Amino acid sequence: MTSFLTLTPVPELLAHIASFAPLEAEDVPLEEGAGRTLAEDFRSPEELPGFDRSVVDGFAVRARDVFGAGEGMPALLSCLGEIPMGAVPTITVMPGTCVRIWTGGMLPQGADAVVMLEYVRQVADPDSADVELTRPVAPGDNVLAKDEDCGLGETLIPGGRLLRPQEVGLLAGLGQERVRVRRRPKVAVISTGDEVIPYGRRPLPGQVRDVNAVTLAALAREEGGEARFFGLVGDDEATLKRLVGEAFAWGDVVLVSGGSSAGRRDYTLNALAAVPGCSTLIHGVAVSPGKPLIFARSGEKSCWGMPGHVASALVCAHVFLRPLLRRLLGRDDGNRIEHVVSARMTRPVPSVLGRRDYIRVALGRPLEPGDAPTAIPVLGKSGAISTLVKADGLVVCLETDEGIPAGTLVEVEPLR
Amino acid sequence: MTSFLTLTPVPELLAHIASFAPLEAEDVPLEEGAGRTLAEDFRSPEELPGFDRSVVDGFAVRARDVFGAGEGMPALLSCLGEIPMGAVPTITVMPGTCVRIWTGGMLPQGADAVVMLEYVRQVADPDSADVELTRPVAPGDNVLAKDEDCGLGETLIPGGRLLRPQEVGLLAGLGQERVRVRRRPKVAVISTGDEVIPYGRRPLPGQVRDVNAVTLAALAREEGGEARFFGLVGDDEATLKRLVGEAFAWGDVVLVSGGSSAGRRDYTLNALAAVPGCSTLIHGVAVSPGKPLIFARSGEKSCWGMPGHVASALVCAHVFLRPLLRRLLGRDDGNRIEHVVSARMTRPVPSVLGRRDYIRVALGRPLEPGDAPTAIPVLGKSGAISTLVKADGLVVCLETDEGIPAGTLVEVEPLR
Repeated sequence: MTSFLTLTPVPELLAHIASFAPLEAEDVPLEEGAGRTLAEDFRSPEELPGFDRSVVDGFAVRARDVFGAGEGMPALLSCLGEIPMGAVPTITVMPGTCVRIWTGGMLPQGADAVVMLEYVRQVADPDSADVELTRPVAPGDNVLAKDEDCGLGETLIPGGRLLRPQEVGLLAGLGQERVRVRRRPKVAVISTGDEVIPYGRRPLPGQVRDVNAVTLAALAREEGGEARFFGLVGDDEATLKRLVGEAFAWGDVVLVSGGSSAGRRDYTLNALAAVPGCSTLIHGVAVSPGKPLIFARSGEKSCWGMPGHVASALVCAHVFLRPLLRRLLGRDDGNRIEHVVSARMTRPVPSVLGRRDYIRVALGRPLEPGDAPTAIPVLGKSGAISTLVKADGLVVCLETDEGIPAGTLVEVEPLR
Repeated sequence: MTSFLTLTPVPELLAHIASFAPLEAEDVPLEEGAGRTLAEDFRSPEELPGFDRSVVDGFAVRARDVFGAGEGMPALLSCLGEIPMGAVPTITVMPGTCVRIWTGGMLPQGADAVVMLEYVRQVADPDSADVELTRPVAPGDNVLAKDEDCGLGETLIPGGRLLRPQEVGLLAGLGQERVRVRRRPKVAVISTGDEVIPYGRRPLPGQVRDVNAVTLAALAREEGGEARFFGLVGDDEATLKRLVGEAFAWGDVVLVSGGSSAGRRDYTLNALAAVPGCSTLIHGVAVSPGKPLIFARSGEKSCWGMPGHVASALVCAHVFLRPLLRRLLGRDDGNRIEHVVSARMTRPVPSVLGRRDYIRVALGRPLEPGDAPTAIPVLGKSGAISTLVKADGLVVCLETDEGIPAGTLVEVEPLR
């Protein structure tokens, strides 16, 4: 008696995931752009700034006029007045003169640098317009030159980047009221199992509350997806087929979880197979936790039979659903390095050759000062949700390893 | 001529921030709980699971009946039937018998372990109810015992934790339809400066678009805050005072940015001082970028004069506003280690004793295989927003250092 004839290696499933195409693009208001993924390279439609700007409060000068100036030998210049903010200055700086300028002010004709306020003193005579400058500057000092921030046509943000507050700011600086991002992947969630009840209800003996629906939906939203719950169904193949059909019509990704027993797993298999054009490519993955995973595909849509165990379902979502959603978003973060923490395993963890294990660990204080933090394996069965609450991250044990010895320095991928 | 008489050291400002009290708590629907901060310790209101559950598909047995079983010497047991899902089993497992059970099924009376399906075979006679079990189990094997996941009254999630998908799942498993979280800090944003125009408008020569409002609002939202824009005001003290008053009436935090020139800075100082009960505690911080920062406080509310330079404003928001918002949320992530990346500086960066510098860096490939990634200082003036788009993170150069030599292994705090 066995539920799985062959287990598919993890890299094969990851290769399937990598073969999905990004979703279509959509325009959203800029202020809703943070956290979205830019669909196409953004090229600068103009120069930024559009003029030479002072980046300090001070005096606009001709750099040669303050050459060699110092505390003991200030340069004496005649101040012609003050630059108005937000307008083109009408004053021209001639040799021997300077103009008071504020941060953000437009550099006047003739000036090529700004001396900071701190290095300028009024001459003793209050009626005099003369000022003493006690620091030299080179041409361009304290000036943000026209197009120094962004040149015309320059690729400022490559397509695929997650828009952080600063990218949104740059787009505002260039007058973009809307931004072209990938639309959110739609993730449909279905729970199954005769013993599973809605989480707001009180279980009778033998019943359990539905944990997977809210957990998977939360994870999908965190990764930039739109999640919708299509319902909880008992061990009823016809109803499951109908729900999967509705979910598939709406979603890019359909997750059917719960009820991982072989009999019910068959319902899920049958329901996914009944979706027109959907082929079951994988049933059973050489992964722990998560072995009973089902992966079916129809074009750019996919249907997943997720493990019913709550911890398994979440680990599988972390390991497979997140990369799928990033792929659908066309995410490409360039050199931005994924958040991983190096830590030292406190105890050995056994594994099995040919299987990829994702070990839940909590992070703890280093064993010795200056050492990496410790990675403490969280013991507990994959049906226990509390193990994931105690876990700070996952450590991978590859197919080629029979386990991880105590004291090994491992990479911990945070469970966000 | 100088704008700041004394600069406050960064640790002093951080101490002010650490002295704010968390905001009040509020109940939200569980499905809106992900990403929020738990207000109080969550103790388990019941045991989870509420009964001994099988975590595999297989046969519920008395462990002593399969003692010593193996491929060559299977234990022969009489199968009494199947456990119904979601109900209390009526069958009792007596010596020499077993019961078929599915994942999630309730362990029947008499049984103390489950043998996995893979290690059970039907005897040849199709009329016989007997099965052969080829693996021994110990009591408790493949069973999630009543309260093994959560014990009654156990603190499952400490107050102050960010709720991840798995915490939401645990709360669902325990029937919580609402969760008590800190309310979102309200962040009011005001932009100032005669030269600044709304970002949707086309600037005339000398004008620039407002970058800070959307950037600061996006950062505040990313940190769990609620952001509201109160307007853009020119160099007009009366209007600024009115706007600050409105912003302060609504917000927990008021950010006035733009127009960092001394003249206008005075308007901001005056406007913040005009808020009833608000004291200006800091004007000028020994930090780069961000020196012209103003910090004023009234009880648990604070008003900030943010630097006008877009990169300075964002770095200050990252370095000061984020910890303030986390403080207002009562965030306490325990051992969950903040995301930092070790990297090797590619070039020396000078600094000044007594000042804390936040150096923008991009991450690059390691110089040698196996080495840490490189941290490449992003050159550019603090008025340039593109420097922050190119930056992956910040490297701190402390007050006690005169700079960071090339080749130093530094910690990079990601600019998310």
